[in-house]
Amino acid sequence: MAVYTDVSDEALAAFLEAYPLGELVAFRGIAEGVENSNFSLRTGTGDYILTLYEKRVDPQELPWFLGLMRHLASRGVTCPQPIAGRDGEALRTLAGRPAAITSFLPGVWPRRVRPEHCRLLGHALATLHLAGADYPVERPNALGPHAWMPLLESCRATGDRVQPGLVDELDRALASILPAWPTQLPRGQIHADLFPDNVFFLESAGRRHLSGLIDFYFACTDLLAYDIGVCLNAWCFEPGMEFNLTKAKHLLAGYESVRRLDPAERAAVPVLAQGAAIRFLLTRLYDWVNTPAGAMVTRKDPLEYLRRLRFHLTAPGPEALGL
Amino acid sequence: MAVYTDVSDEALAAFLEAYPLGELVAFRGIAEGVENSNFSLRTGTGDYILTLYEKRVDPQELPWFLGLMRHLASRGVTCPQPIAGRDGEALRTLAGRPAAITSFLPGVWPRRVRPEHCRLLGHALATLHLAGADYPVERPNALGPHAWMPLLESCRATGDRVQPGLVDELDRALASILPAWPTQLPRGQIHADLFPDNVFFLESAGRRHLSGLIDFYFACTDLLAYDIGVCLNAWCFEPGMEFNLTKAKHLLAGYESVRRLDPAERAAVPVLAQGAAIRFLLTRLYDWVNTPAGAMVTRKDPLEYLRRLRFHLTAPGPEALGL
Repeated sequence: MAVYTDVSDEALAAFLEAYPLGELVAFRGIAEGVENSNFSLRTGTGDYILTLYEKRVDPQELPWFLGLMRHLASRGVTCPQPIAGRDGEALRTLAGRPAAITSFLPGVWPRRVRPEHCRLLGHALATLHLAGADYPVERPNALGPHAWMPLLESCRATGDRVQPGLVDELDRALASILPAWPTQLPRGQIHADLFPDNVFFLESAGRRHLSGLIDFYFACTDLLAYDIGVCLNAWCFEPGMEFNLTKAKHLLAGYESVRRLDPAERAAVPVLAQGAAIRFLLTRLYDWVNTPAGAMVTRKDPLEYLRRLRFHLTAPGPEALGL
Repeated sequence: MAVYTDVSDEALAAFLEAYPLGELVAFRGIAEGVENSNFSLRTGTGDYILTLYEKRVDPQELPWFLGLMRHLASRGVTCPQPIAGRDGEALRTLAGRPAAITSFLPGVWPRRVRPEHCRLLGHALATLHLAGADYPVERPNALGPHAWMPLLESCRATGDRVQPGLVDELDRALASILPAWPTQLPRGQIHADLFPDNVFFLESAGRRHLSGLIDFYFACTDLLAYDIGVCLNAWCFEPGMEFNLTKAKHLLAGYESVRRLDPAERAAVPVLAQGAAIRFLLTRLYDWVNTPAGAMVTRKDPLEYLRRLRFHLTAPGPEALGL
């Protein structure tokens, strides 16, 4: 759930005066998202999302994220659009946090992923990669491979409380993944966090379409095919952690219907998927061991990602991932 | 927060087929409410709330609650209205829970209560009491005075972990409150849980009005003036637990602009406020000592209500509450 910060009536009213959106009609916390506080906001002019950016988001980077969302939309990627205030500014402060209003996207994220979702996701991911190509400013991936060993170090003393032997296993995994990490693949703007709850779908007249992508606050400039690794992990494992090859093939086919992977990218997908698994494993492990037992925060289970990592480390090659 | 149960796409789609509401457009969990799982639902015909009733709600009582909401609306109380399916039924099953769709109410609950809110609240509360007078079926208050000693008994072994001496203090309080509990006051349908987050307001052209009441799932048949006790506790204490007499006077004046309290009710408000304080204290204490430390549930602090109880037990009489 994600309402870490609540907003007083007076502060909200004063904030809304900076926008030409009419009178406040409804305001409710949204029980989705993990990093920031999100509210659904209805005014006389329509529906919006109000986001308060919490501690993990660097305020100096917000213009980059909002600019990327505008850039992508102008090239056909449906994503929330920052709403400018009367002063032209989309970013201001509310309840002591950086805050922005964005447009409301219709759609429902899939609770149960089907191969058809994966095909549409792949198509949208490749479209995003092409659309981002001329977004001029780079943002390094703060959670890329250089960050993984420091994350593991910060959990070294306590990580085995989650599972005995875990820290050793992650040491061995990093010793295998980091030297194999590719550097020469096509780079560009990636989403880097495209989990099912960040992708909305709609069905109309029996036909499903992808209605938009949300939550760009981990977006960065990195290897395009790394996003495929993130999505293979997030979309193609069954609840029992079996890898669903059909979903993977749909995801890749959807992607390649827009942007062909080059041979070096195809060869690198297995190690990119390993890296994507260890990246989410490590941040979840960090949160797990650093969240006080009484804190009212939903901690995500790091071990789900250990099972994904083990699958990828023992997979025989790109074919096992549908390539 | 309240999304205890999530809903698969297929289950939601099948559920919506029972309603003449058009196609699904959006579906998001709401981070408000404590007892049930609530989702904002948009379809081709508008906005709705989908509620899954969780374990504290007895499914057999749901028709009583939904019927009361229909009855009150027909007499001018704005509250969510159950939406009937094509078969005429408003209640069905989703994700293994009883579930209903209700209408969406515009409005914003007050994060910071002002005297004007209290006046409007009092007016709405009295309107509700009059409107409920001819709702024919009684529902006993499951959390009325007969329930308080058993609740305390169930916390006897562990309650002092929250604060040393707490169980003794509550024993003494019940020994004072229960014998003084009135029985001959006017009775009727009460809300019994009218906290600020259950009351929506809107401002239009600089004028504030109350746009609706929600969450009737503690409603029952009991002393009308007990609802005043609940509201005095929930609306008239400052964050530092000082009692705000101005807010109390506004609440009572708003109430009496619609329904006059008789002299016996006025005399009983202090003990009713004591009882309302101990009722919320005991259920919060029960939840506190019975919620596993790791559970991802927001526990409300019982001690906030101990401070209210102490205020009421030492208040010199009805005048101290604004009567």
